[in-house]
Amino acid sequence: MEPIKVGLLGLGVVGGGTWNVLRRNAEEIGRRAGRQIEIVRVAVRDVAKARAKVGADVQITDDAFEVVRDPQIDIVVELIGGVTLARELLLEAIAHGKHVVTANKALLAMHGTEIFEAASRKGVMITFEAAVAGGIPIIKAIREGLTANRIEWVAGIINGTTNYILSEMRTNKLTFAQALQQAQQLGYAEADPTADIQGIDAAQKLTLLASMAFGIPVQFSKAYIEGITQLSDEDLETAQYLGYRIKLLGITRRRAQGIELRVHPTLVPANSILANVEDAMNAVLVNGDAVGQTLYYGKGAGEEPTASAVVADLIDVTRLHTADPGQRVPHLAFQPDAMADIPILPIDEVVSSYYLRMMVDDVPGVLADIARELSNAGISIGSMIQQPSEQGYARLVFLTHSAQEQAVNRAIASIESMPFMRSQVTRLRVEEF
Amino acid sequence: MEPIKVGLLGLGVVGGGTWNVLRRNAEEIGRRAGRQIEIVRVAVRDVAKARAKVGADVQITDDAFEVVRDPQIDIVVELIGGVTLARELLLEAIAHGKHVVTANKALLAMHGTEIFEAASRKGVMITFEAAVAGGIPIIKAIREGLTANRIEWVAGIINGTTNYILSEMRTNKLTFAQALQQAQQLGYAEADPTADIQGIDAAQKLTLLASMAFGIPVQFSKAYIEGITQLSDEDLETAQYLGYRIKLLGITRRRAQGIELRVHPTLVPANSILANVEDAMNAVLVNGDAVGQTLYYGKGAGEEPTASAVVADLIDVTRLHTADPGQRVPHLAFQPDAMADIPILPIDEVVSSYYLRMMVDDVPGVLADIARELSNAGISIGSMIQQPSEQGYARLVFLTHSAQEQAVNRAIASIESMPFMRSQVTRLRVEEF
Repeated sequence: MEPIKVGLLGLGVVGGGTWNVLRRNAEEIGRRAGRQIEIVRVAVRDVAKARAKVGADVQITDDAFEVVRDPQIDIVVELIGGVTLARELLLEAIAHGKHVVTANKALLAMHGTEIFEAASRKGVMITFEAAVAGGIPIIKAIREGLTANRIEWVAGIINGTTNYILSEMRTNKLTFAQALQQAQQLGYAEADPTADIQGIDAAQKLTLLASMAFGIPVQFSKAYIEGITQLSDEDLETAQYLGYRIKLLGITRRRAQGIELRVHPTLVPANSILANVEDAMNAVLVNGDAVGQTLYYGKGAGEEPTASAVVADLIDVTRLHTADPGQRVPHLAFQPDAMADIPILPIDEVVSSYYLRMMVDDVPGVLADIARELSNAGISIGSMIQQPSEQGYARLVFLTHSAQEQAVNRAIASIESMPFMRSQVTRLRVEEF
Repeated sequence: MEPIKVGLLGLGVVGGGTWNVLRRNAEEIGRRAGRQIEIVRVAVRDVAKARAKVGADVQITDDAFEVVRDPQIDIVVELIGGVTLARELLLEAIAHGKHVVTANKALLAMHGTEIFEAASRKGVMITFEAAVAGGIPIIKAIREGLTANRIEWVAGIINGTTNYILSEMRTNKLTFAQALQQAQQLGYAEADPTADIQGIDAAQKLTLLASMAFGIPVQFSKAYIEGITQLSDEDLETAQYLGYRIKLLGITRRRAQGIELRVHPTLVPANSILANVEDAMNAVLVNGDAVGQTLYYGKGAGEEPTASAVVADLIDVTRLHTADPGQRVPHLAFQPDAMADIPILPIDEVVSSYYLRMMVDDVPGVLADIARELSNAGISIGSMIQQPSEQGYARLVFLTHSAQEQAVNRAIASIESMPFMRSQVTRLRVEEF
């Protein structure tokens, strides 16, 4: 059979990895796919640089639109990133009947509805395994492996940069700034680390996972996002003392009133499996009503781990590109006409356990006043520690049972107005799973 | 669209779970699959008992051959187990053009070649996600999620019964007999636990994983199998003292000379992710050249976890039952005409690290003699501990670097013939991954 013809947009880290993996494993891939997969055309900014990599049998252009319109091309692989040009290119590729493989989480989180609708109308596939958790086949697990289940929640470490930073802060006692600098030196963090450390990258991925878990539209704008920049060494140490570790988790959970969709630093029990995912590794825990908890672990980024997902998608598309659309897995796991309009809950309505840390005057009655305030707000205390501090102050840390966030925030406001308070209340969420 | 019609053979633990999950999640499954999946006929030994469960709209028979020959049925789900009748039923179902979903690892490990060939000739699918690691979609991960990779090795805890026993022995200091009895009381072990504790069940699953990882025929008879019945509390404790835990692992690895295919108790570092898979949980670690290590974790057995895999297969078959065979994933991940004839290595040629424990007279020169014998056999020592014992004996434990098993066995034979030996040498394999 003729090789299937691929146009590659972008020959950076992931594009280069995709090129390398396809070539190195061509024989093995052919044995699996039953057909060769050939990159016939590449669009890059620097044509000369690309020429040094890909050799003379591949056409190179600096105009990506030439590639997405090229009649010989069956599948377009979009690895240029960004949301403006990439969106135009994807829509143009779809309009020309191309199937698309992409790693672009930002684009799909923001413009997924438009793109998937266009693809469905045209009868082409958009695959995006590489957009979430690198080489871990988590999208395949949720879209296909766990289809028997009513999925209850998904919780994951889906940003390797922040997991690396938190691991280094905890195990090597680095400050946030030191750990970030080290992550940049190792290539785990970009020169502008904003999207990682602010939780935006994790929220984009979580938005896609939530959509596939619950059959809801992609709604990035409704995600609650809190990064790790405000975390103090003190909280990391206190968490450890209490038997927890702090991880930046993406959590999406089905509740009676709607769907929780939130990214924030989270205390998880130190002996739990998520707590032990260290360095730049990713892991996603999925809870289904039939299967219970399953976990998917691996490298969430990097040249070849991400290329592994891109090439797996290429093989899936190669198998199914001539199939009826009904024989393909729906883009977002549920049939387009069966998507549900379940609301995303605002963060105020989220239910979690909480870690509350504060500094108070070390005088009688303080504990009673705070405990009464929490009790009045309907918040039950799971455990508490008091530690003496300098200057006659005491450090209090409460771990609460499950409570609604707005009740906790109201209680915090009341507590902060009490006369014996010597700090604001640091509030972190706690999940036991 | 008309519901797809399923004939169910067996309504025991997994059959009952499949019935329950399909009914409870019918709406969710329909939203995903785009089509209802309906069990129209059930074959059981006890018709009256089944009638109480399935209601009047389902035909019940005690002749499973009626079901596999029933023209109205599209998919046969085989959950009766065993290898004799089940083999005949599967071949008959295939001959009648039925697709088959099965959880029968023993059958596929022993008769897979015959069954897959028959299915390929007839153009029907045999799916078996439930045959390995229960609800964990590990077969989908290897057959589809990691297709870009040249897989180097797979190592897994794929028998929950033995993992539960080893966890209890370690954490609660039970003897093997006590832990087995407890596993039986909890329903984790069967009345006849032979297939679990002897490693046979794990080897059947590993045989299937190896075939899909490397594109080789299913060859259960060539697997090396060693169970956990000979493990002593002393070795569990010594392993822990050395920073290891003992797990029953299935390991299959590609080497230049062939494929290793082996199930045996294995020391793994206590802080490694596999070491921390406790109780009856399963986990499979896969190493691919592009993606690196990925791990898949969850419940490896039980009514609904296993049903989760059966129903996911039903949904896959529902999507693809009218597709061209070329649009389906090959049964064993590689195209039938591209299977490789790589030999399975005999256990003598396996390469591993080793734990060697022995009791010796506590006299000068013993250590030098043993070290020289190991060195003569080309075996390098990684670490050693000596502990005094009663009666003037000393207990020696060596951890070796990688060595070929036959060299280790020869060295052990020489050491055991030395005059100062007061025990045989206990030999366990060690893997660091």
